[in-house]
Amino acid sequence: MSFILATYHVTGPAHEIEARAEAIALEQTVELPRAAVPDGELPAPVVGEVAAIRQLGESLHGVEVRLSAALVENRPSQLINVLFGNISLQESVTLVDAHFPEETLRGFPGPRHGMDGLRQLTGAQGRALTCTALKPVGLPTSALAERCRIFAQAGIDVIKDDHGLVDQAFAPFAQRVAACQRVVEEVNEARGSQVVYAPNLSGTPGDLFRQAELCRELGVAAVMVSPMLVGLPVFSELVADHLPMPVLAHPAFGGALRMDPAFQQGSLFRLLGADASIFANYGGRFSYSPETCRRMADNLRGPFGPHKPALPTPAGGMQVDRIDEIIDFYGTDVMLLIGGSLYMAGDQLYARSRAFVENVADRKRE
Amino acid sequence: MSFILATYHVTGPAHEIEARAEAIALEQTVELPRAAVPDGELPAPVVGEVAAIRQLGESLHGVEVRLSAALVENRPSQLINVLFGNISLQESVTLVDAHFPEETLRGFPGPRHGMDGLRQLTGAQGRALTCTALKPVGLPTSALAERCRIFAQAGIDVIKDDHGLVDQAFAPFAQRVAACQRVVEEVNEARGSQVVYAPNLSGTPGDLFRQAELCRELGVAAVMVSPMLVGLPVFSELVADHLPMPVLAHPAFGGALRMDPAFQQGSLFRLLGADASIFANYGGRFSYSPETCRRMADNLRGPFGPHKPALPTPAGGMQVDRIDEIIDFYGTDVMLLIGGSLYMAGDQLYARSRAFVENVADRKRE
Repeated sequence: MSFILATYHVTGPAHEIEARAEAIALEQTVELPRAAVPDGELPAPVVGEVAAIRQLGESLHGVEVRLSAALVENRPSQLINVLFGNISLQESVTLVDAHFPEETLRGFPGPRHGMDGLRQLTGAQGRALTCTALKPVGLPTSALAERCRIFAQAGIDVIKDDHGLVDQAFAPFAQRVAACQRVVEEVNEARGSQVVYAPNLSGTPGDLFRQAELCRELGVAAVMVSPMLVGLPVFSELVADHLPMPVLAHPAFGGALRMDPAFQQGSLFRLLGADASIFANYGGRFSYSPETCRRMADNLRGPFGPHKPALPTPAGGMQVDRIDEIIDFYGTDVMLLIGGSLYMAGDQLYARSRAFVENVADRKRE
Repeated sequence: MSFILATYHVTGPAHEIEARAEAIALEQTVELPRAAVPDGELPAPVVGEVAAIRQLGESLHGVEVRLSAALVENRPSQLINVLFGNISLQESVTLVDAHFPEETLRGFPGPRHGMDGLRQLTGAQGRALTCTALKPVGLPTSALAERCRIFAQAGIDVIKDDHGLVDQAFAPFAQRVAACQRVVEEVNEARGSQVVYAPNLSGTPGDLFRQAELCRELGVAAVMVSPMLVGLPVFSELVADHLPMPVLAHPAFGGALRMDPAFQQGSLFRLLGADASIFANYGGRFSYSPETCRRMADNLRGPFGPHKPALPTPAGGMQVDRIDEIIDFYGTDVMLLIGGSLYMAGDQLYARSRAFVENVADRKRE
């Protein structure tokens, strides 16, 4: 039988840590005190086991727990449940990482297109990719489509909806997606480019399945979904059964979790099929450290069983003048998402978008 | 136009709080710097507004933000997105509460059965309700069904699956639910009782819809779902379209959120249709304070627009000998969930379950 090895950070007195670690192993599996576990009747490895305890600080420990892969059954809801279901209710416990056995890795789809698929789709070879967002919510479809045209003419590889654009009356989903997709196709035909429009899918499963169907009918080349907003199990089913095109993951609501973001938005999103993962870059308006961003990129691009690399997509208050620094940090296997900083240019939106594209193009893979 | 009033706790220096509050209002709506908001083109109230800032400590402030209800469009994913989508990525911001306008409250189903429906279903009038969990995962269906029989004979009102029981090979969903439902029906017929078995639904939307259908076919009287594990939008659609029977919400994975639990497991779960909400009681093996539990119960039972009261269901390491104290605290409009403490009785499982039922029955409404 194979095991998931989950790592938690636990705060509290050192003299309690052995009991706390044992309690985590039980809570996440049989959810019974040790004395109430019917030993004879259970397949032995079902009961979680403490694999290691390491002291990390005066009142901080790393606890590794072995969790039976048979409990997960390759279902996303159960993966989260076994990793962090009840124990998330203890505020002193943080899920920082997990190593999956081959059986579990193979049980989930991973990226179907991944980094290489997105390069093929956009024709972006030997350099970083560029990405921006259509916004703000409240604008009518015509105004959003006009912005989409400017970005497409500037040659930005991927133009995505803001994650707050859903199906509001201002710019209903079906109308907006048809208009923006048409604009991008017109520009691509005129310029011989491969710009991609990625609408934002959101709502209940029924909403999402209908939106996916419309996107397929319209020939939409990529989409964006926020896995934590729609729920990881829905994200998983949506990707596997309804979205043949590449999928960008957006981190909205994900920061609310007491779970390492590099694990969540890196490993978990990739495991469930994200081809690219948007995350808050260091030095922007969110609070991730360069070290977290490094691990995020590693989790998205590094070895991961049978799974393709996904494209790291740093975002969140990045400025056009930071392009060099960001490519120095991540290398060129990255997609740069810049939104607000382009809009600050006002009626110079085309010029600044063009500068974004050209600056990235200048940084060829070395 | 109507507004949601969201309250955040923000840690950081007092001299930055006005700018931080403004940034939250923008982030959660237009997601643009103020200077890039196209004022003339937008319906004015779309842009979030700071309503109040209160100093709560040297480096802690409460920030109230007005968010347009039109952005939410009565969709659960968008409700979470507008309340806590991107701003969740700032670790110094916690969502503590929100007040919804009548328009938003009416846009969501709320409990269809609620507290009174659960009392009718179980015949439990004038006293607190009793509840326990079938566990542990790993046991075969026959052993779980045997435990179910003992609890039913003892007269526990609601016997729910452990939230870790899904569709594992040990006790597959269809087999387990059929067996436990049959056992409860047999006991009810023999004893003239109204014990309810509530299976745990889990998985992707497709899994959940199939499980719901099976439960309807088998005449299952109530079910349990973990809204945060399956995702709030799925929970919402599942309740509205697939589950005519009462629904118990389980908090698994919910504690991972930097969001006030009384708001999440009280207000949000109730808004989306939970008839009862299971939560970690104070003084058990989780870390909620009595004050949090008090607010949880208030959010579940108090006035909430057009919505029925839901049944507070404290749980998590409660002992049979704490029944008096817990009923003193919550009153009798409550369901007591005791699991591990019953199992600790070993072969005295029936006797201790019976004591649980009788002690609760002795505490009539005053």
